Amino acid sequence: MNFNMNDLIIKKRDGKPLSTEEINWIIDGTVKGTIPDYQLSALLMAIFFRGLDRDETYALTAAMRYSGDIVDLSAIRGIKVDKHSTGGVGDKTTLVVAPLASACGVPIAKMSGRGLGFTGGTVDKMESIPGFRIELEPEEFLAQVRDIGMAVIGQSAHIDPADKKLYALRDVTGTVDNFGLIASSIMSKKLAAGSDAIVLDVKCGEGAFMENIEDAVTLADLMVDIGYDAGRRTVACITDMSQPLGKAVGNALEVMEAIDTLYGRGPEDITELSVKLAGIMIYLGGKAETPEDGQKLAGEALTSRTGLTQMRMFIEAQGGNGDVIYDYSLFPQPAHSLELRASCSGYVAKINARQIGLASQHLGAGRASKEDKIDLSAGIVLNKKVGDRVEEGELLLTLLGNDQTKLEAGQRLAERAFRFSDEPVERPELIKEIIGL
Amino acid sequence: MNFNMNDLIIKKRDGKPLSTEEINWIIDGTVKGTIPDYQLSALLMAIFFRGLDRDETYALTAAMRYSGDIVDLSAIRGIKVDKHSTGGVGDKTTLVVAPLASACGVPIAKMSGRGLGFTGGTVDKMESIPGFRIELEPEEFLAQVRDIGMAVIGQSAHIDPADKKLYALRDVTGTVDNFGLIASSIMSKKLAAGSDAIVLDVKCGEGAFMENIEDAVTLADLMVDIGYDAGRRTVACITDMSQPLGKAVGNALEVMEAIDTLYGRGPEDITELSVKLAGIMIYLGGKAETPEDGQKLAGEALTSRTGLTQMRMFIEAQGGNGDVIYDYSLFPQPAHSLELRASCSGYVAKINARQIGLASQHLGAGRASKEDKIDLSAGIVLNKKVGDRVEEGELLLTLLGNDQTKLEAGQRLAERAFRFSDEPVERPELIKEIIGL
Repeated sequence: MNFNMNDLIIKKRDGKPLSTEEINWIIDGTVKGTIPDYQLSALLMAIFFRGLDRDETYALTAAMRYSGDIVDLSAIRGIKVDKHSTGGVGDKTTLVVAPLASACGVPIAKMSGRGLGFTGGTVDKMESIPGFRIELEPEEFLAQVRDIGMAVIGQSAHIDPADKKLYALRDVTGTVDNFGLIASSIMSKKLAAGSDAIVLDVKCGEGAFMENIEDAVTLADLMVDIGYDAGRRTVACITDMSQPLGKAVGNALEVMEAIDTLYGRGPEDITELSVKLAGIMIYLGGKAETPEDGQKLAGEALTSRTGLTQMRMFIEAQGGNGDVIYDYSLFPQPAHSLELRASCSGYVAKINARQIGLASQHLGAGRASKEDKIDLSAGIVLNKKVGDRVEEGELLLTLLGNDQTKLEAGQRLAERAFRFSDEPVERPELIKEIIGL
Repeated sequence: MNFNMNDLIIKKRDGKPLSTEEINWIIDGTVKGTIPDYQLSALLMAIFFRGLDRDETYALTAAMRYSGDIVDLSAIRGIKVDKHSTGGVGDKTTLVVAPLASACGVPIAKMSGRGLGFTGGTVDKMESIPGFRIELEPEEFLAQVRDIGMAVIGQSAHIDPADKKLYALRDVTGTVDNFGLIASSIMSKKLAAGSDAIVLDVKCGEGAFMENIEDAVTLADLMVDIGYDAGRRTVACITDMSQPLGKAVGNALEVMEAIDTLYGRGPEDITELSVKLAGIMIYLGGKAETPEDGQKLAGEALTSRTGLTQMRMFIEAQGGNGDVIYDYSLFPQPAHSLELRASCSGYVAKINARQIGLASQHLGAGRASKEDKIDLSAGIVLNKKVGDRVEEGELLLTLLGNDQTKLEAGQRLAERAFRFSDEPVERPELIKEIIGL
C-alpha cells in the first residue's frame, strides 16, 4: 500500500480519521526515513489540533510498538509486571516497588529511561551506585530476572525507534501536549518491553506533565484502554505531584531515600505510594488474591526487610557495590552544601515541585538537553513538606552540589517554590484515583 | 534578537499573535537555513489552524519582501503598474493587458511565473514564441522598459527567497490554504518586484484557488490592505473562473488567442476582462482621470491596434520572432488533434475549468511537478462556452497534442467537464467585484 503524505496531512488537518493502513504506512516511513521530518511535524501539529480517536490511537501505538525490536520475556516463568511513571520530581518509586514486588515473587524485567528537564530518570539514579551497569546483554538480562527475579536496564536503542524519532521531533515542534500522542508514546514502549501486565503511575500537579486531575484521568483512561486492547492488564494510579515526592531530589540522594524506605524509615508519602503500587503489581502478578492482599504482602516485605535484601541482590547482580545499603558514603559526595531557612513562621502551603525540580537541575542533577552531563551527587533534600508547621529561621531544605555559585542560584530558585499560610494546611491527597482495577 | 523556535511555535499554536520581531527572526532563519524545515512546517500548520491577524500578515509580507533582492525601477520614469493573477485556466490576460496599458503610456516591468498543475503561467506561454528570451539581465530589463515601455521576464531566483522556501514546504505539508499565507506570498513578491501600483486579478470558481466569492473577497481585501500598508495603490478585481477564460487552453494556443484579442477578434470574455484590467492600470498609472477613461483608452488601443504593435515590439525586443502576430504556423505545431462532440442537444450549463485544465495538463500542456517538461503546442480549443446553444453532434472542443493515447484520455477527461441543460442558461458574470478602487 502506498499513500501520498501530503494527502494524509490534509486528511488529518481537515478532521478526518486516518486508517490503520495509513498509520502503518506513516510509521514505516518514519523509521525508514522515507517521510521527511517536515511532513511528520506538520502531521503532528495537525494531530495536536484535531486529536486522535480511539482507533487511531490504538493503531499508532501498535505501529510504533512493532517499529523495532520486541522484548520476548516468555522464557521467564510467571506473570511479568512492568511499572511506569509519567515522571515527576523526587520520584524514586521504581527503586522501592520493584524490590518489594520482586521479593513477593513477581518477576520484574524493566527498562527505564534517563531524566530530562526538571524530572529525573531511574537509569541516572542507578548509575550513582558505584559499579552499577545499566547496560546488559539481552541474555544477561533474562538470566538475571530468572535467577534473582529482577533486573532494570536502560531503554534499548532498538526498541520503538518510531517513538524515538517522533518524540525528538515533537520536543522541538510544539507538539508534545496531545493525549493520543503521549499515550501512544508511553504504551508502545511498554508493550514492546514485553511484560504481561502494566501499572502506570500518572503524576498530576505542577511538577508533572499533567497539571490537573481531569487531564490526568483522560490520559490514564486512554492508556488503560490501549493496554486492554493489546491484551495486557493495565492499571493506572493518579498520584500527587504538586510537591516533590519524598524529601530527596537528585540522583544519589534519591537512591539513598529509596534504601531508607526499604528499611522502613522513609518519608511517609513515598512509603505509602510504594506499598500501594507494589500491592497492585503483586495482585496483577497473581501473587495475591486482591490488591489489598498485595498491599499487605508489600508491607510485610518492607517490615521484614526482604525488599531491602532483594535490592542488595539486584544491585550486586548488575555489578554495583551492595554495601551502599548501609554505607551511604560510597555514593558520590557533593563538595558543598547550602541551607534554605524560613523567613517567617507558619504552615507550608505549597512546595512547587517544578520549581524544586528546576533548582535541582540547575545544581547539576538534571539535563537541559540530552547531551548534558549530570552531577550524580547534586540535588536537594527537603526538611519540610506541605502541611508542616515551620518557625522563622527553621531549615526548609538543603542544597547539595559541587559549584558554590550554582548553589546560590539554586537557593533563589528553590525559595520561590514555597508558599506559607497562617492557618493550618491540609496535606495533599497522595493517591487521587485508580483506574482499571 | 534571538528567539527559541519551539517557543514561537507553541505561542502561535496557543493562539497568541507573533510580534514583528519574532516574524523577522523566523524569516531571517528561513533564508539562512538556521531554522530546520520541520520547525517551519509545524509553525505553518499552527498558522493554518490559528490564522494570522492583520499585523502579523503585514509583518510576514514585509519580512519576505526584504528577504532577497528588491527590484529598483526608479530609473524608469512614470508610475509603473504591475498586474497579477491568482491563476486559472486559459488565463492569458497578461499578454493582452500589458501591451494595451503599455501602448497607453504605462510602463510595464513585469516578472511572471511558470505554470503548475492545471493552471498555466505567462513564462511558459511566452516561450512558445520562437526565439523569445524570458531571462534578461537586470540592465537589459530596465533598458527595454525605458526604450519600448514594456518587458516581461521570469521570476528571479534572488527575489523573495523566503517565499520560495516556505511555498515549497507549504506545497507538501498541507499548509497552502490559508488566507494570510497566500496573501503574504503573493504580495511580498509583488512588492519586491518594485512597481508603484498593483492590479490583482483574483480568480474565483472551480478552476481557481478560491472556489467561492466569500473566500475571494477575503483574500482580495487582505491583499489590497497589505498593498496600501506598503504605500502601493492596489486594486483587486474578482473575476469568474468557473469556466476557462476565453477559448484557448495551452501555451502556444493562448498566445495566439491573446494576439487574436489584440486584433479585436478575440473571445468576448477575454476581451472584456482585458479592457477592464488595462483600464484600471492606465488609471493607476496616471494616464487617465478615471478608471472609465482608462478603459476607453484601452479600448482605443485595441481598435487602433496600437496594442498589437506594442506586442510585436515587445516580442522582438526580447529576441522573439515578431512575425508570429500574422503567421501562427511559426508556433510549435501539434502532430495530432481529436474532437469532442456533443452527445445531446441543449444549452451548455457548465464547463468545469479545473477539469479542462487537468485534461490540458494531461495532453502535455501543464506540469504535475516543477521538473516536468511541457509540450508548448498541446492544449484545448473550446468551440462552446457556458450559455451557448449546442445541437447533438456539434463540436464542443478540439484537443491538440503529440500523443494520440493522451489525446484520447484527455478527451474523456474533458467530456466530464460539461453539463447541459434543456433550458437556456445565463452566462456567468465575468467581473464579480472590484476592491480598492
